[in-house]
Amino acid sequence: MIELSVKTRARVEFVDITAQIARSISEQKFRTGVCVVYVPHTTAAVTINENADPSVVTDIIAALDKLVPRDWQYRHSEGNSDAHIKASLVGSSLYLIVENQKLQLGTWQGVYFCEFDGPRHRRCFVKLLPG
Amino acid sequence: MIELSVKTRARVEFVDITAQIARSISEQKFRTGVCVVYVPHTTAAVTINENADPSVVTDIIAALDKLVPRDWQYRHSEGNSDAHIKASLVGSSLYLIVENQKLQLGTWQGVYFCEFDGPRHRRCFVKLLPG
Amino acid sequence: MIELSVKTRARVEFVDITAQIARSISEQKFRTGVCVVYVPHTTAAVTINENADPSVVTDIIAALDKLVPRDWQYRHSEGNSDAHIKASLVGSSLYLIVENQKLQLGTWQGVYFCEFDGPRHRRCFVKLLPG
Repeated sequence: MIELSVKTRARVEFVDITAQIARSISEQKFRTGVCVVYVPHTTAAVTINENADPSVVTDIIAALDKLVPRDWQYRHSEGNSDAHIKASLVGSSLYLIVENQKLQLGTWQGVYFCEFDGPRHRRCFVKLLPG
Repeated sequence: MIELSVKTRARVEFVDITAQIARSISEQKFRTGVCVVYVPHTTAAVTINENADPSVVTDIIAALDKLVPRDWQYRHSEGNSDAHIKASLVGSSLYLIVENQKLQLGTWQGVYFCEFDGPRHRRCFVKLLPG
Repeated sequence: MIELSVKTRARVEFVDITAQIARSISEQKFRTGVCVVYVPHTTAAVTINENADPSVVTDIIAALDKLVPRDWQYRHSEGNSDAHIKASLVGSSLYLIVENQKLQLGTWQGVYFCEFDGPRHRRCFVKLLPG
């Protein structure tokens, strides 16, 4: 298992980790199989979306804030319930297909670490499954 | 990796691709393991839900439209921000368990390719991991 | 494939199945790889979130109810459309990384079976992929 380190700079921020993941794959000389990306945090997530126009990510963040506002009648006393809820909506893990040491992403796809309760030093696990 | 082709006929449409996936599994004579389904697009997704009553899918589509309306204060200029957001909410990938060449789906489960910005010719990757 | 049995006691309830999953891993003496958790139901899901303060799960359930109310202009006649929609938002499957027979979870992470149309006797599939 490879451990990536992600430093976030705002409370809510999507960090493009595609290059970090691609680097681990080539460092491991991993040829073919599946690459599992796993976030070991409960107020962060991982998603795939457009990496061409940054306003797409801005829109996703704004829409999530509208759907799950920071302030509401939450029970959890730490003031980050919205971050926990967004993490479960977006998801803590995903996987990517690798062929010939290349991530099989769509033309416009990037992998984003989704910070919902930053800024923090975060970790992200990458596991390579040959097959 | 197998590549499925999916033709969508509306802007928003859920296409049942369960049979296509089952066919690739039997064509590959894949016995046991995991079947990864991956959508290489940023305005489409894949989900599992009921395939018995089509009104279930109609309700999911309507609820997503209510949660993420097509028109809002989006920054992205292509008019499809809602599609990008829905893609991140529903997810770009999932996997299915295969035992004895059979998809281990629940009685009412079908796999749906979720088009959020069609109609288009789309692709869907299927990767079989023995184990 | 291992089949877990989950008994839910309310219409909407998140059941922590982390210990059950960990037990199957040690019973199988599974050392290293990926553990796939799959829910074969269309009105239930599986998610990872905080297992320390139970009010986090309470907040997630309340927020999902607010986003997808039980009563709305649904077509599906069984009165559980909200459960189907929540299942697609949260997701039917996830996987966990296993190293040295240990689930690689974050400090605060637990795996929750998400019941959205209970109480019922439910099943949950666990598949271990070495790698």
